[in-house]
Amino acid sequence: MIEPSRIPPRSGIAFRLRSGEILEVIDPHGCQVADLLAYSADDVGEVISNGRTFDYEETICLTTGNVLWSNRSRKMLTILGDTVGRHDFLLTPCSVDTFRHFYPDKPIHHGCFGNLAQALAPYGISEDAIPVAFNCFMNVPLQNSGRLSVEPPVSRPGDFIQLRAECDLIIGLTACSAYSSNGGSFKPIDYRVILPPTAPNEPAEADQS
Amino acid sequence: MIEPSRIPPRSGIAFRLRSGEILEVIDPHGCQVADLLAYSADDVGEVISNGRTFDYEETICLTTGNVLWSNRSRKMLTILGDTVGRHDFLLTPCSVDTFRHFYPDKPIHHGCFGNLAQALAPYGISEDAIPVAFNCFMNVPLQNSGRLSVEPPVSRPGDFIQLRAECDLIIGLTACSAYSSNGGSFKPIDYRVILPPTAPNEPAEADQS
Repeated sequence: MIEPSRIPPRSGIAFRLRSGEILEVIDPHGCQVADLLAYSADDVGEVISNGRTFDYEETICLTTGNVLWSNRSRKMLTILGDTVGRHDFLLTPCSVDTFRHFYPDKPIHHGCFGNLAQALAPYGISEDAIPVAFNCFMNVPLQNSGRLSVEPPVSRPGDFIQLRAECDLIIGLTACSAYSSNGGSFKPIDYRVILPPTAPNEPAEADQS
Repeated sequence: MIEPSRIPPRSGIAFRLRSGEILEVIDPHGCQVADLLAYSADDVGEVISNGRTFDYEETICLTTGNVLWSNRSRKMLTILGDTVGRHDFLLTPCSVDTFRHFYPDKPIHHGCFGNLAQALAPYGISEDAIPVAFNCFMNVPLQNSGRLSVEPPVSRPGDFIQLRAECDLIIGLTACSAYSSNGGSFKPIDYRVILPPTAPNEPAEADQS
């Protein structure tokens, strides 16, 4: 098994994920959030969409078996495994503006939005092209009235979610920077890319020569 | 009072709405949905965002007093009046793809998405720049499990919602084309633009000469 890589607290990265590869996002210490974005590597105008996902999955609570869909109604990522079962696809990445709004007395941070913008810029993705992220482990309970709140994640150390790429993707991924989403603690996020399994009877290339 | 204009069944329009003007969206026959989009007239890269709205309003049920925020964390529209109290900001405009998915045995229509794309193209707004719309009168109950369904609107003939522009906007507005969102009937939507009231003691321009 490949060793996981680490995203330091309050930072973010971007990388390519090929069709069929499995991204595992791990909460190494527990009670932390990772904002996840996925763009088509062939055309970054195509990106995961909370609205299209809610349309086709007919739920706002996404876990094993659910698919994250793009703004062009294409499957982007399928959730293959999930030891937490509580994530958020309603709220936007924290940003300078959300820090000013929610934490006016605390130091301003550019947040997951700033980290994603920096990491995705080399792929030609602009700030305006950052939609609602799939917020792994983020705990946003809804009341019957529709009111929502951001509570500490229920994830424990080592909990993870696994997502299979359904096409070639550019991934953006953060260790969340906001106070409320991780219970006031800033922790790292780990991740690894698992290669697709080879079919047991698939002949090696050399056998065909 | 200005007479309302009519959007014919299964069609859409776009127009400018200046800061301070009030858009009234009316359901003339009841049980119909209108998909509403708003872009900054100064830079159409700025558009209403369900995620930023859920962030700042801390609810997914939006009615009188709530604000629709942009992807750049700016106020776009404030709901001033609402005789229905049930709208949706979770689901995307119906499209060729959603018709294929949900109504495979029925004739394919380009839907609110196609109508919005056509109406907004002259303003330089591309299909990929169409996010989740604010779906006036759309009835999307959520179960505690997170599962959602699209039910007939509860709006009665003459019901309306009023929204004040907080900056100069390009508005996209439709009479919905999908089967389930309007209970299987395709009806028109009416709308009118109400000019901002003049302050009672504001001198007329001529008085100042």
